[in-house]
Amino acid sequence: MGYERENIRRMTGYLPGEQPDDDQVIKLNTNENPYPPSPKVQIALQALQAETLRRYPSPTAASFLSAAARHHRLAPDQLVATNGGDELLRLAITTFVEPGQPIGIAGPSYSLYPVLATIHGSPVHAVELTDDWSLPESFAAQMNAARVPLTLMVNPHAPSGRLTSAREIAAVASALDGVLLVDEAYVDFADPGHDVTALIHRHDNLLILRTLSKGYSLAGLRLGYGIGSRGLIAPLATKTRDSYSVDAVAEVVGAAALEDQRYARRTWQAVRAERERVITALRQRGFQVPESEANFCLARLPAGAPRPAKDVQEALRAEGVLIRHFDTERLTDCLRITIGTIEQNDRLLQRLREWTR
Amino acid sequence: MGYERENIRRMTGYLPGEQPDDDQVIKLNTNENPYPPSPKVQIALQALQAETLRRYPSPTAASFLSAAARHHRLAPDQLVATNGGDELLRLAITTFVEPGQPIGIAGPSYSLYPVLATIHGSPVHAVELTDDWSLPESFAAQMNAARVPLTLMVNPHAPSGRLTSAREIAAVASALDGVLLVDEAYVDFADPGHDVTALIHRHDNLLILRTLSKGYSLAGLRLGYGIGSRGLIAPLATKTRDSYSVDAVAEVVGAAALEDQRYARRTWQAVRAERERVITALRQRGFQVPESEANFCLARLPAGAPRPAKDVQEALRAEGVLIRHFDTERLTDCLRITIGTIEQNDRLLQRLREWTR
Repeated sequence: MGYERENIRRMTGYLPGEQPDDDQVIKLNTNENPYPPSPKVQIALQALQAETLRRYPSPTAASFLSAAARHHRLAPDQLVATNGGDELLRLAITTFVEPGQPIGIAGPSYSLYPVLATIHGSPVHAVELTDDWSLPESFAAQMNAARVPLTLMVNPHAPSGRLTSAREIAAVASALDGVLLVDEAYVDFADPGHDVTALIHRHDNLLILRTLSKGYSLAGLRLGYGIGSRGLIAPLATKTRDSYSVDAVAEVVGAAALEDQRYARRTWQAVRAERERVITALRQRGFQVPESEANFCLARLPAGAPRPAKDVQEALRAEGVLIRHFDTERLTDCLRITIGTIEQNDRLLQRLREWTR
Repeated sequence: MGYERENIRRMTGYLPGEQPDDDQVIKLNTNENPYPPSPKVQIALQALQAETLRRYPSPTAASFLSAAARHHRLAPDQLVATNGGDELLRLAITTFVEPGQPIGIAGPSYSLYPVLATIHGSPVHAVELTDDWSLPESFAAQMNAARVPLTLMVNPHAPSGRLTSAREIAAVASALDGVLLVDEAYVDFADPGHDVTALIHRHDNLLILRTLSKGYSLAGLRLGYGIGSRGLIAPLATKTRDSYSVDAVAEVVGAAALEDQRYARRTWQAVRAERERVITALRQRGFQVPESEANFCLARLPAGAPRPAKDVQEALRAEGVLIRHFDTERLTDCLRITIGTIEQNDRLLQRLREWTR
């Protein structure tokens, strides 16, 4: 029987992408940055003193928060530091959604969203993206009609990589009755001209999620943050967030990484260049690949490909090349491929050619 | 106005104990271990490579979990690693309590419990401890009568330090209809003969909370874990826990600390010796101090003391000695004092003598 709630008993947990121990594996399945963190990260790690771990960390991760506030030219109370971006997602649901109220999602999307909704006891109100993965014009109206208090959208979109412009985001935020959480997990790899953070001054319902996992090569550190108006940030930062959710190591190492913008930007530029090369090569081989502003692309198999996408993923996996396949309606003939280093991408393209011809 | 839920709008967040930046302050207010972490922790920190932070950590914190399982002679699926003990408290509520159902507490207790209940939308069902801080005989019956699905008790008790025996814990677990979470944040400082972990084999509703914050001097690392029957642990570990909630640093550093039992035990023994000395000295000065099995004690001011406890705390604070006062009914004339190093305790006793005579 068990003691857990009925909704927990019935649900299936989030399934993380495979994390092999084998360093020889080419890992293009979970959208990590292929380049190492800034050298400043290693320096910050070397400087860590065990004695600083003896005491509780800053409850707000103050020194990281200051660094992030400087970076975005905002005040520290317009940001909240979290244990990875995932904590911000959970916090937003806890803070803005009564259990049972629907949570809005632009589908298909990050598979954690419906898991978090189920844990909260809330249904998902999914509004499907159009064929080119853009928001339907009626998006906000549909969310409002369903009385959705919180809408989650990832931008650039996963798994397609499509970027919704700041102008469109502003229009959705204006039209929505509830909170709009824009999950910018991959935004560092987008066109450097794209920036929605300034919108928080005009839209008090806009919550922006950032993470150091991808853009700063620190997925193992678990550090993210939210950006929003003071009224939106305050309950997250002072009420629903776990006390001390960001540890003393993440606080200083995260600040060091964020402050080395020059290094981070070089990795983003390298990923962008490789992204264009990979997409061009895939298209030449007959894959349908939409433009991507993320560190991955979504490749639809050529019409008449000899094997289904799932089998191609399995075949590559057997050869030590991991990519991601989602067994859902609109994605069944697609592969989501993280952009790796030049050598990794070469190997991927070569193996993909073998298995799709 | 704001977008947050009504229960969130009305609540007050958890107030962490003061964390001054000043290293000269004698900090006896938040129950940290006064001794530094094991030298193995410094070695583990030195060995950290930035590159290991590039990838996602083990979703289960596998290497730490293995170390903890070996330490307790249990299987890894009888444990779950969490971002500090606080994450386990939240997870237990999320997993076992429908919003609106009451959460049982043996009061007075850790002030985070009612905060977590309020966030969840649940009332607290508090059953008061007796005058000597032990559980009333009707404790389980009262919880069952209120249909409490989850009861939280901290053992050794905070703020008194009183230890409830394994035999009593077993009796409560047997009698309770719901889950019993025993928060053993301070258990490392208790009599080494005290051990309730074996009870999980007979009581499938017993969830034990452990943390490395106090016993292993790692409050800044944020690492705790739960111990329980497989049926109790599974939904926490595979469904409600945030994916990757324990970072790659905590996983390896925590394992290093846990494996150096010899060092940790030396710090516990030193704390015990100082605890007896501090309690004896306080009693000689007229304070009422119950026996404590934790790394703190609760000192009730002598009858006729010239200043209320709150003023004594403020006076010591002005002199750079932090201790904790709780402004609640049963504790208003008490001070909770963390056991520090010999020098810190000497200074505390000296200042306390000045301000209470």
